[in-house]
Amino acid sequence: MSTVDSSRRTVLKAAAAAAAGAGLSAVGAPAAAAASENGIRIAILLYDGITALDAVGPYEVLSRVPGAEVVMVGKKAGPVRTDTGVLGLVADRALRDVPRADVLLVPGAGNRGVIAAMEDPAITGWVERVHRHTTWTTSVCTGALILGAAGLLRGVPATTYWASKTYLATTFGAVITPGRFVESGKIITAAGVSAGIDMSLRLASLLTDDHTAQALQLAVEYDPQPPFDTGSPEKAGPELQALALQLLADSAT
Amino acid sequence: MSTVDSSRRTVLKAAAAAAAGAGLSAVGAPAAAAASENGIRIAILLYDGITALDAVGPYEVLSRVPGAEVVMVGKKAGPVRTDTGVLGLVADRALRDVPRADVLLVPGAGNRGVIAAMEDPAITGWVERVHRHTTWTTSVCTGALILGAAGLLRGVPATTYWASKTYLATTFGAVITPGRFVESGKIITAAGVSAGIDMSLRLASLLTDDHTAQALQLAVEYDPQPPFDTGSPEKAGPELQALALQLLADSAT
Repeated sequence: MSTVDSSRRTVLKAAAAAAAGAGLSAVGAPAAAAASENGIRIAILLYDGITALDAVGPYEVLSRVPGAEVVMVGKKAGPVRTDTGVLGLVADRALRDVPRADVLLVPGAGNRGVIAAMEDPAITGWVERVHRHTTWTTSVCTGALILGAAGLLRGVPATTYWASKTYLATTFGAVITPGRFVESGKIITAAGVSAGIDMSLRLASLLTDDHTAQALQLAVEYDPQPPFDTGSPEKAGPELQALALQLLADSAT
Repeated sequence: MSTVDSSRRTVLKAAAAAAAGAGLSAVGAPAAAAASENGIRIAILLYDGITALDAVGPYEVLSRVPGAEVVMVGKKAGPVRTDTGVLGLVADRALRDVPRADVLLVPGAGNRGVIAAMEDPAITGWVERVHRHTTWTTSVCTGALILGAAGLLRGVPATTYWASKTYLATTFGAVITPGRFVESGKIITAAGVSAGIDMSLRLASLLTDDHTAQALQLAVEYDPQPPFDTGSPEKAGPELQALALQLLADSAT
């Protein structure tokens, strides 16, 4: 077994060199200063049956926004289980402890989780009340259905998970709009699961500036090169659509 | 507030139609059957200071692989805090309870977390022992440094987070190799953070077949359209590299 060179306390060795070479203090300072003035509170809703990546993709970007404070909010404080049942995410605060946020992010879930959330007035009521004072109200995947159940999407251009678009339109009156994410005033809805990463980079640029958002994209090394090109229902076709939904159903608790 | 149409118990309405149209049982059955025969155990290591997306990106894909069982493993069972300090992920099993796995996935962390893990013989010893019997041993981001500390990467083509490549080569003798992920025998190392999603789709195809992996890509609607093109250090340039590392340092606990 190799031993670790403990005399070097950073494993990001290229980091220090790059920082020095680029004049780090001059680059980093303005963003940091603007940030601490902003004091941006970002609330991410966690609930039983959530799809983890819907929350964690945006969290990974938004938690690095200068001056932002991300808080994970659940019906009560404590762990929630995700849709597959094999992962727990911890909500640090209860809904009642977070009456306001500058940014609200509502992740999606599978059928069981999202139906329970849509039918829970404690959740939809909180979403509706927090939304009144947000700068940005956002959703990922079927999280849009929870915004819909809170009455926020009637007549509003929006998107959601590809297989839930019809439901979002017919049940909540949203105007289904193409795009990886859709901006409608202060409401931004993202398409399914991984689309939250794309949306969060746009949101980061709105909260700070393009330069900072571009650095955040590098921070999470988001240079996607999927081995296939089947990430949208149009590209995948009906047979893969059916299999995708079967795999989701089979993996759901 | 809108009311939910409770008579419809699925919000994936397009789903049922697509499934029916494509002859779902014929499509879904072979994959499911192959899967349950495989009985693939996938162990994802969680540890204090982990970068959440390194684990959750692959988890989201791999937990849908037919017949796969994902288990989150920590030094002890219970929650670990991520590198930003604002998210907890729950490890359901302790290291000693998971002596074998078909697939081992080691996520990365910031400086503090990854150094602690590299220097912890309980972790590196477990990684080394589990690796002996895996079908695939994988890492995301600086998780490669933990594979290195376990003695698995000497002379092995590999990658890691862009800012840690020099460290991985000089400290652990890995042969730094370009690519979003690098396959070297049964070891697959992914680049930083979000690269774990790309790797996990490749891994899904190795565990099943391309068709199933393509459906999993649609299941997580992975049709990436980042708003910027700054996801690699080469594309971003030295100034954004410096800012990215500063933002990571500022958001670390």
